[in-house]
Amino acid sequence: MGWVERHENDTCAIAAALAVVGDPWTLLILRDAFLGVRRFEDFRRGLGVARSVLSARLKKLVDFGVMRIGSDELSNGRRDYLITPKGADLFPILLSLKAWGDVHLYGRGAEPHAAKHVCGHPIDPKFACAGCGEVVRFGDLRLEPRDARTVGETLARARG
Amino acid sequence: MGWVERHENDTCAIAAALAVVGDPWTLLILRDAFLGVRRFEDFRRGLGVARSVLSARLKKLVDFGVMRIGSDELSNGRRDYLITPKGADLFPILLSLKAWGDVHLYGRGAEPHAAKHVCGHPIDPKFACAGCGEVVRFGDLRLEPRDARTVGETLARARG
Repeated sequence: MGWVERHENDTCAIAAALAVVGDPWTLLILRDAFLGVRRFEDFRRGLGVARSVLSARLKKLVDFGVMRIGSDELSNGRRDYLITPKGADLFPILLSLKAWGDVHLYGRGAEPHAAKHVCGHPIDPKFACAGCGEVVRFGDLRLEPRDARTVGETLARARG
Repeated sequence: MGWVERHENDTCAIAAALAVVGDPWTLLILRDAFLGVRRFEDFRRGLGVARSVLSARLKKLVDFGVMRIGSDELSNGRRDYLITPKGADLFPILLSLKAWGDVHLYGRGAEPHAAKHVCGHPIDPKFACAGCGEVVRFGDLRLEPRDARTVGETLARARG
């Protein structure tokens, strides 16, 4: 029994999110999509991933509305894998992973990719509270459990 | 060959971070640790995870300095699994997963856990640029690749 099956009766947004995107290949596919990759063959070559694995991951992302198959002004008439607005909201997860890897694995000054905000400032993203503007730290949250659907029900409803 | 082996010659902070924490069980262990779980048996029971899996994941987190085995003022003399400062910096990853799961899987108003900042505002964390204070969105970053160590070298150095 996999971890999702063990947790499908929980009520937890993190477990539900992990069931959709919490797998390394999926997060690498999303990384590349954010960097502009949009074609199956380009994902496959760039990631060195087996076709069957890539195909299953992309299908799941499309099923959950994180990506869509379609064309936009850059597609030249091709059908591409495009990030949807729902998928664009996954950007903080990738940015958090980058920030942690930069600081705690590579070390400051040795980051593989320097990232600058459009304002010109080197990126040092901090989670700010939309209410008071203060940086949100571990320990600054109060969680109130409520009645909610289970992970299993939530995934069934979220899958297109 | 697993995905880490395929990417160990890349230079990428996201791939390196995923090699340490990019697995669902590990992220659920960290979720529970942030919620206050600290004993092996409590992780095991709460997650329904096999001892061998839990043991391997915790060992890896300790090896990479994300958790430590030790005691603090709440330990009553026991040896607990405690989050280190390096581990506390993973909090934005968990918070990003929660925010995305709340909005895009459960839906606003149906979140399993209402989260309030200590200021009293319902939490709606946004990544802000430390330079200009603006919310950082997908497309607002400029990435500049640099010479850097590979993922494999970085992981070898980061492992305790």
